[in-house]
Amino acid sequence: MPSDDLRTFLEEDRKGDPSGRVVRLLRERGSLSAAEIARASGLAKSTVSSVLAELRRSEIVVDAVAKTTSRSSRAGRPGTAVTLNPRAGACVGVAIGPTDIRVIAADVSHAIIADQSVEMPLDYSPQTAAKVTRRLIEEACAKSGVSRAALIGAGIAVPGPVHPETGRVQRASMVPTWAGTDIRRVFAPELDLPIFADNESNCSAIAEMLWGAAVGCDNFIFFKVDLGIGGAIVVDRRVITGLAGGAGEFGHMTLDPAGELCICGNRGCLELYGSLRPALRLAAARFGASITIEELIERANAGDVGCRRLIEDAADVAGRGLAMVGTAFNPPLIVVGGRATAAGDLLFEPLLRSFDRHTLIKRSEMPEHLRTRIVAGTFTADDSCLGAVGLVLKHHGRVGEARV
Amino acid sequence: MPSDDLRTFLEEDRKGDPSGRVVRLLRERGSLSAAEIARASGLAKSTVSSVLAELRRSEIVVDAVAKTTSRSSRAGRPGTAVTLNPRAGACVGVAIGPTDIRVIAADVSHAIIADQSVEMPLDYSPQTAAKVTRRLIEEACAKSGVSRAALIGAGIAVPGPVHPETGRVQRASMVPTWAGTDIRRVFAPELDLPIFADNESNCSAIAEMLWGAAVGCDNFIFFKVDLGIGGAIVVDRRVITGLAGGAGEFGHMTLDPAGELCICGNRGCLELYGSLRPALRLAAARFGASITIEELIERANAGDVGCRRLIEDAADVAGRGLAMVGTAFNPPLIVVGGRATAAGDLLFEPLLRSFDRHTLIKRSEMPEHLRTRIVAGTFTADDSCLGAVGLVLKHHGRVGEARV
Repeated sequence: MPSDDLRTFLEEDRKGDPSGRVVRLLRERGSLSAAEIARASGLAKSTVSSVLAELRRSEIVVDAVAKTTSRSSRAGRPGTAVTLNPRAGACVGVAIGPTDIRVIAADVSHAIIADQSVEMPLDYSPQTAAKVTRRLIEEACAKSGVSRAALIGAGIAVPGPVHPETGRVQRASMVPTWAGTDIRRVFAPELDLPIFADNESNCSAIAEMLWGAAVGCDNFIFFKVDLGIGGAIVVDRRVITGLAGGAGEFGHMTLDPAGELCICGNRGCLELYGSLRPALRLAAARFGASITIEELIERANAGDVGCRRLIEDAADVAGRGLAMVGTAFNPPLIVVGGRATAAGDLLFEPLLRSFDRHTLIKRSEMPEHLRTRIVAGTFTADDSCLGAVGLVLKHHGRVGEARV
Repeated sequence: MPSDDLRTFLEEDRKGDPSGRVVRLLRERGSLSAAEIARASGLAKSTVSSVLAELRRSEIVVDAVAKTTSRSSRAGRPGTAVTLNPRAGACVGVAIGPTDIRVIAADVSHAIIADQSVEMPLDYSPQTAAKVTRRLIEEACAKSGVSRAALIGAGIAVPGPVHPETGRVQRASMVPTWAGTDIRRVFAPELDLPIFADNESNCSAIAEMLWGAAVGCDNFIFFKVDLGIGGAIVVDRRVITGLAGGAGEFGHMTLDPAGELCICGNRGCLELYGSLRPALRLAAARFGASITIEELIERANAGDVGCRRLIEDAADVAGRGLAMVGTAFNPPLIVVGGRATAAGDLLFEPLLRSFDRHTLIKRSEMPEHLRTRIVAGTFTADDSCLGAVGLVLKHHGRVGEARV
C-alpha cells in the first residue's frame, strides 16, 4: 500500500523544503534519530521535530524497529530512530557478473527483503540478462510478498564504464560483448521500472557509503583488489562518474608503458601486476591446477610460503598504484574492497607499507588526524549488488535524466 | 565607502536566500546578466529581476561598465550585465614565489586595481614575507586610491600543500624553510585582514575558473608544466584540497620507483621527467651556460632541433602522467598551465598524443561530446596571484574556519 504522498516525495526529490530534505536523508541513510537528522540536514531541531510529527501523521515515516534484517550498521540501535515507511516501496539492485546475475531487493527503510541469484554462461547477451533479471525480480517479489507495483526502481551494476546520463556502456572489459549496450533500452521494456545504472565499482562504493566502512564519510576513495583492480571517487557523498563514466578506473593507470598488453588495449596497466590474477596464474603453475582466490588465501593462511609471497607481491604493487591515487587526492579515507581483502594482514601489511613508501604525504609523518585512513571494506561478494539498490535510494545514475 | 549591507553579504555567505545567492554568484563570477544569473542560480527570472531591483536600490549591485580594466573574459560585453558595487571593497592576492613576492588587488567587481611585486633573496623567511607583503599592500592602496579599510581579505598562494582549515604549510618542496609555517599566525598580525590560503596550483585553477580557460566549467583538472609539475582537482566549482592540503600533487606520482631521488623524498616522481627541469639541465650542457624556460622555447621556435626534442620529450612523459590522471578521473576538461604552454603545438602535439596513447578512455574512440577537452590555460606567470584574489572572492580556504 504505497502512499501517494511518499511516492511523490521519493520520485520528485524535493531538495528545497524541509520535509523533502528529511525524506531524502532517510532514503539515503536508512534510519536516523531526530538529532542525527538535524546534524546532517543543518535544519533546526525544532524544525526537524515538527517535520517528523507531520511525516508521522501522514505515515511517511515510522519508528525504526529495534533490530532490523537490514545490513545497516545502525541495526540494533534504540527505538528513537525513524525510517521511511517500508510499506511505501522497495528498490531492486541487479549485479551483472561475468558468470552470474544477482538481484537484491530492499524496502525504502533499507531492510533487505530478498536476495536471488543465478549462474549464467560466459558471454551471455544483454537481452538474455534483461529477461533473466525480470524472472529473478518476479521470484523475489513472490518470496517476499512485495507487490510488483510497490517497486520504485531498479539499479543495474555493470562491469564497465557506463555513461552517467545515457546509460550506455562505454567499454566493457570483463564482458566485451556488452560494449555499446544501451542499458535503458535493453532493461526498461522488460522491467517496466525507472532504471538507474553505474559501473560496478561505483556501486560498491555506494554500498560502503550507505551500509559499510564509509558510513558517515562524505569524501573517500574506494579501491577494489580482486581479479582486476577497480575503484571509485566519492566527493560530498556523490560518486564522480566522469565525462564518459570512466572515473575511478585506477586499475588501468599505466605502470609500465612497455609492459604486457591489457584487455583494455593499453600496456602495463596496474591491474596486470597488482590484482590477484597474476598470483592465480603463478599458483596454477605451482600446483599444476587452477585455483580460486579463496583457495589461494586458504593455502596462504595454512602456511604455504609461495602463496603468501604471491599475495604480498600483489599487495606491494597494488600499494604503489594506490599511492598514486593518494598523491593525486590526499583523501581522508580509502576503503579497500574486493575478495583480496579476505587475506587480512597478509594483504594489508605490505599494501600499507608500499602506500606509505610511494605516496607524497606519508601517514608516518602526519599527526593522527591528518593521516589517510586505509580500511577494509565491509562487503566483498555482494557489494556491487547492494550498491545497485543504493543507486535507486540515492537517485544516482538515473538513466535518461540529469544525475542528482 | 563600503556599504555595511554589502559587507554583511560578503562576509556572511548567506547561501539560503535569493539575494545571498545572487551576491555570491556575482562575487565569484564578476559580471553577469540577469539571464545568466537565473541560469546559474536556478532562480526564476522574475525572482532574479526583483532581487536585482532591490540590490540596485541599496547600491549593492551596479551596472557593469562596458569595458573594464578587469582581465575578465567578460570585458567588453554589453551594458546589460551587473556587478557588485566596486566601491564596496577590494581583495588582495599574494603569491609567494621562490625569489619574488607579488601582490594583486581587485575590487569585488573583479577589476584589477593594483599589481606590485618585489624580488626576494633565496630562502627568505615567512616573517620577512609577511612584512614585505604588508608594504606591497600599502603601496598598492596608495597607488590605486583604495582605502586600507576597504580591504575585505587577503589570499595567499603558497608553494606547497597547505592544510585547508589550519593554514599550516604541510610540506614546502620549493621553499623548504616554510614547512610547518602557520600562515595565519605569521600573516594575520602584519596584515590585519581575514586570511585565506591555499597551494599555488590550487590558486592557479581558481584563476582559470574565474577569469580564464575554465570559465563556465564546474568540473575540471588543472595540470601545470613548468620547472615542476603541479595540479588541482575542481569538482562542482570547488577545489578539492585533500585531508592535509595535498590533493592535486600530480607531479609526485611515482613513474619509476627505482628512479632519481626527488626533493619530496620519493624516487622517480613524474616531475623529474615530465617537467622542463631536465630539459633545462640538458640544454645547459648543450650550450655551456644555463638557460631559462623562455630561452629554451625561443631557441626551439627558431629551429634548434635539440631544444625542440627536449620539449617534445618532456611533453611525452607529461602526457603519460596526465593520462594516469585522465584514467582516474575521466574529466570533461583539462586546463594545462605553466610556462611550458608558451611552446604551443611543440608541447601540445606530443602531450595530446601521449595522453591518448596511455589513457583508458581515448579521445579518438569517443564521439565529440564525450572527449576530454585539453586546452592551454589563459594565464601563465600571474595565475597563482590572481587565484589568490579568487580565494577571497570565493571564500575558499579561509584559515581558522571550515572551508566553504
